[in-house]
Amino acid sequence: MKKVNYKTLFNDIFLELQPIEKKGAPASYIPELSKVDPDKLGIHLSNVNGEHFYQGDSDERFSIQSISKVFSLTLAIRLIGKNLWSRVGVEPSGSAFNSLVQLEHEQGIPRNPFINAGAIVVCDVLVTHLSDPKGELLGFIRKIADNPTLQYNRSVAESEMATGDRNKALIYLMRDFGNIHNDVEQVLDLYFYLCSIEMSCRELARSFMFLATNGMDQSSGEMIVSPSKAKRINTVMQLCGFYDEAGEFSFKVGLPGKSGVGGGIVALHPGKYTVAVWSPRLNAKGNSYIGMRVLELLTTKTESSIF
Amino acid sequence: MKKVNYKTLFNDIFLELQPIEKKGAPASYIPELSKVDPDKLGIHLSNVNGEHFYQGDSDERFSIQSISKVFSLTLAIRLIGKNLWSRVGVEPSGSAFNSLVQLEHEQGIPRNPFINAGAIVVCDVLVTHLSDPKGELLGFIRKIADNPTLQYNRSVAESEMATGDRNKALIYLMRDFGNIHNDVEQVLDLYFYLCSIEMSCRELARSFMFLATNGMDQSSGEMIVSPSKAKRINTVMQLCGFYDEAGEFSFKVGLPGKSGVGGGIVALHPGKYTVAVWSPRLNAKGNSYIGMRVLELLTTKTESSIF
Amino acid sequence: MKKVNYKTLFNDIFLELQPIEKKGAPASYIPELSKVDPDKLGIHLSNVNGEHFYQGDSDERFSIQSISKVFSLTLAIRLIGKNLWSRVGVEPSGSAFNSLVQLEHEQGIPRNPFINAGAIVVCDVLVTHLSDPKGELLGFIRKIADNPTLQYNRSVAESEMATGDRNKALIYLMRDFGNIHNDVEQVLDLYFYLCSIEMSCRELARSFMFLATNGMDQSSGEMIVSPSKAKRINTVMQLCGFYDEAGEFSFKVGLPGKSGVGGGIVALHPGKYTVAVWSPRLNAKGNSYIGMRVLELLTTKTESSIF
Amino acid sequence: MKKVNYKTLFNDIFLELQPIEKKGAPASYIPELSKVDPDKLGIHLSNVNGEHFYQGDSDERFSIQSISKVFSLTLAIRLIGKNLWSRVGVEPSGSAFNSLVQLEHEQGIPRNPFINAGAIVVCDVLVTHLSDPKGELLGFIRKIADNPTLQYNRSVAESEMATGDRNKALIYLMRDFGNIHNDVEQVLDLYFYLCSIEMSCRELARSFMFLATNGMDQSSGEMIVSPSKAKRINTVMQLCGFYDEAGEFSFKVGLPGKSGVGGGIVALHPGKYTVAVWSPRLNAKGNSYIGMRVLELLTTKTESSIF
Repeated sequence: MKKVNYKTLFNDIFLELQPIEKKGAPASYIPELSKVDPDKLGIHLSNVNGEHFYQGDSDERFSIQSISKVFSLTLAIRLIGKNLWSRVGVEPSGSAFNSLVQLEHEQGIPRNPFINAGAIVVCDVLVTHLSDPKGELLGFIRKIADNPTLQYNRSVAESEMATGDRNKALIYLMRDFGNIHNDVEQVLDLYFYLCSIEMSCRELARSFMFLATNGMDQSSGEMIVSPSKAKRINTVMQLCGFYDEAGEFSFKVGLPGKSGVGGGIVALHPGKYTVAVWSPRLNAKGNSYIGMRVLELLTTKTESSIF
Repeated sequence: MKKVNYKTLFNDIFLELQPIEKKGAPASYIPELSKVDPDKLGIHLSNVNGEHFYQGDSDERFSIQSISKVFSLTLAIRLIGKNLWSRVGVEPSGSAFNSLVQLEHEQGIPRNPFINAGAIVVCDVLVTHLSDPKGELLGFIRKIADNPTLQYNRSVAESEMATGDRNKALIYLMRDFGNIHNDVEQVLDLYFYLCSIEMSCRELARSFMFLATNGMDQSSGEMIVSPSKAKRINTVMQLCGFYDEAGEFSFKVGLPGKSGVGGGIVALHPGKYTVAVWSPRLNAKGNSYIGMRVLELLTTKTESSIF
Repeated sequence: MKKVNYKTLFNDIFLELQPIEKKGAPASYIPELSKVDPDKLGIHLSNVNGEHFYQGDSDERFSIQSISKVFSLTLAIRLIGKNLWSRVGVEPSGSAFNSLVQLEHEQGIPRNPFINAGAIVVCDVLVTHLSDPKGELLGFIRKIADNPTLQYNRSVAESEMATGDRNKALIYLMRDFGNIHNDVEQVLDLYFYLCSIEMSCRELARSFMFLATNGMDQSSGEMIVSPSKAKRINTVMQLCGFYDEAGEFSFKVGLPGKSGVGGGIVALHPGKYTVAVWSPRLNAKGNSYIGMRVLELLTTKTESSIF
Repeated sequence: MKKVNYKTLFNDIFLELQPIEKKGAPASYIPELSKVDPDKLGIHLSNVNGEHFYQGDSDERFSIQSISKVFSLTLAIRLIGKNLWSRVGVEPSGSAFNSLVQLEHEQGIPRNPFINAGAIVVCDVLVTHLSDPKGELLGFIRKIADNPTLQYNRSVAESEMATGDRNKALIYLMRDFGNIHNDVEQVLDLYFYLCSIEMSCRELARSFMFLATNGMDQSSGEMIVSPSKAKRINTVMQLCGFYDEAGEFSFKVGLPGKSGVGGGIVALHPGKYTVAVWSPRLNAKGNSYIGMRVLELLTTKTESSIF
């Protein structure tokens, strides 16, 4: 990787993307997402040396949605380690993020922790092992983000719950197969709150840093997870982090990462940096249209794809 | 059809079946079904001339389970007629009675009203159009059975509800597709109560008689449904009444009918008779093992298959 | 069934259908089918007393296509009886007539002998047990039709073969599962020739008569198949004879039957009559649009549905 | 990545694996694979500086099987570039390597070029664009391997052809969807020959070197493919190179690679090295049991996972 002037680079990238026609639209299944300004654009890159580079709306919080599935996965791995893999797989799904077909064919075991069914199982694990799941999960996220002001958005969580019939179908099907151990309402409540967290690009870049540094929080010196577990999380992001666009993202960006329907994407280069980008317009696969372009230009211009 | 001495015939059939090894077992997913004496055996045939023939435990009530889906279907057809067919199909399913795969592929429209998903949609229709769904449904069943003592079994209904995760997955998936219009709990409550009705062979034979007489209740002279609607119900029973054993039942018995996991089977010969049989041991497909044999011997010895 | 003046009845039906808008179009996947006059319409009814009633183009031969699968099934049952059912099922499929999904999920065993895969397995059985499969099959059809002039249409067979990639996929998949025992080319050759047979409505009504008379050819006195086997064939037709429209056909027509994409439909009332109708325009499910209407009016006006 | 003494490292790894119980068995679907000595074990690592490290049976040729799909993919990308991606995807499949279900649901477009269907489409592209496909493909492989002695194994190819019914089903299904443009026999002939190539670990490590060096053959200076295309091939290997074990391999080994049922695995660290390992015993997913362990130990001990 070449020595990079990110300030100039981000400027160039934003300029290059400016004339792009406004493709796609924000998610519209809940009002809180649909009323976001679709032309927001922000990026924040933090490297392992503590330097920060940013541009645009990088300090504005947005609904991180599925990105937070990395936090719940991390916490579940801290709690039960490898035992998690008997209840959820680590392989890409090859079908829609909310499909029931795979679940029925594979006896209620979701293919990975980032499809909805998998994230719900992870929440079930948290409910089993935590006395105050919602509070402790938020506490954990605040810790790795080093930011006590992070919050769930109750209005978003309630909207998700109100439109969550497909997720209810998923959880009942899994419970029928014996892969949900707790009260369905409680697990879903945690799941929908998890999806409602709001963070800025800067905060996201901070909170994913431990995955770029072998599992250790460099500022506190605390091991969030072991290096092996950090690697596991990174590989799951690489293969399953972008719905049915993992191959496309791997090629274009070449970094492990996770996207959300709020238009955010986080990616990281192990040992080097984390980067978060936000642009609410989504492509047909549910990933941020401009967000993917920004990251593609970033890794191409800096030659920092891991491939 | 030859003139038949049913008394002798039933005797012969029971004798012929006596040495059969005791194959299968009663349903065991709820305690109320599993604790039934597995060797109960009863039959009751009522012809359109008002004659009755019976043998064995034909006056003992048992859990009719899915047989009651014919009652709810009939009531829904009375209420909304052909409009029902935009929300549930009339074709055999070719997959398990509780599969979600078909539902997902066909946009939440169940293949027929006798698979679980289809019966749940029928209950949703009843909830929409009745002010007291549970009461009015029971009242309707009492009317066509000419029997005010029929009851739901609350203990069975609650056990069904407690083990009903798969059915909850089905209803939430359908609601996600817009094919459930009412509160999920209320619809499922009606569905599970529907499954809990208890009747004897004699009572079943009585309550299905209108389907053998072009939709008219002969004793009261009331049209329960039009002749065309009676024919529709009979054809749906013929094609979809026996889970994934419709072809086998059509060949062996050759009459439209409906079975339940309580071990009951009702069949009817349009214009001639209705017949109900009960034996709790089930075959691998969930139909009464001896019940199917009894009906096979009956139609073979009387040459009364419709084919 | 009321005493019927079929001459008048057919007249009435044809008049009633005349103003119908010209819906659908003939099959177009091979030139021989697409160039047929789409407005041909013929019907021929033969009762068990040897009477004949007909109207329109009832003496003109057309490509009977899948209707001939009843002939190959009958011959296979004559050859190996019940052993056939270990290689092909008797249940409706619930999916497209040429789907590979069901085959893959059920280990290469087709659901019934009328979907393409099932008819190919039946041809495989014929190739195993006949020294001259094509000749003997045609001979058998000529015998039950009492008509030595019947022929395969080589041009149709070759067009089918040329567009038969899907069928080749089916046969290779089944051979992979061990359910095809002979040379693929030879089996498919027989299959495509089978589909190419041409008959008129009169000839079809004649050739299906043994299924209305308990398996016996009344004119020769020969048992074509046993009464039990005739019943089996009739029930398979009832449940599987109309692609994914078995339920609709059962309700509207209420007789066992078989359709073909050439626009022909044969149906029969056991103990009473056989009837063949031909009209090349197909509905979305691949069945003759007007053909189904004609049979619906026929059975409704004569009250001869078996339900 | 630390400075590594590979000689010592390989010794350590082999010693560490020695006491491992002999799990799995060589592939047995063709005699040529089943009669291989199951306890062969070889490894060869070549770094971009031209150094070589090896141990065990690293110079013995074996059937590389699906590994050669990387060669055919590379050649097809040289011929038609991005146009390839309209005919085959770049996403993991989430189902068996030879499943027809996905193909039927996605209109004959295979999910990626490494499942059988995808590799067959790639062969179809080669047949379209090469005048002597078999000769030119072998020539290309010899060039990137810098080895004119490489050969197809005709006996293996013929055995593959003889047991290739599933692959025939795949190709006919795709041709039915219009995604095969050439004669089926010719395409399959090329495909089965492709699978029959024999190489040693040393030869494999050499032939994959261009993918570790941005697409350029360092010894000749020739661009085999552009850096962007090399990256594309590497990402497809990362996500799809190990059947349904991509996630597991990414975690344990953390390098893009490709395995074959002959027991070979090739992996590469972009900018650093290529490595090939061979051990014929396969795990349940069809990948070399010990081969995966060797690579896991290698990348763990050298900390050279890309994650």
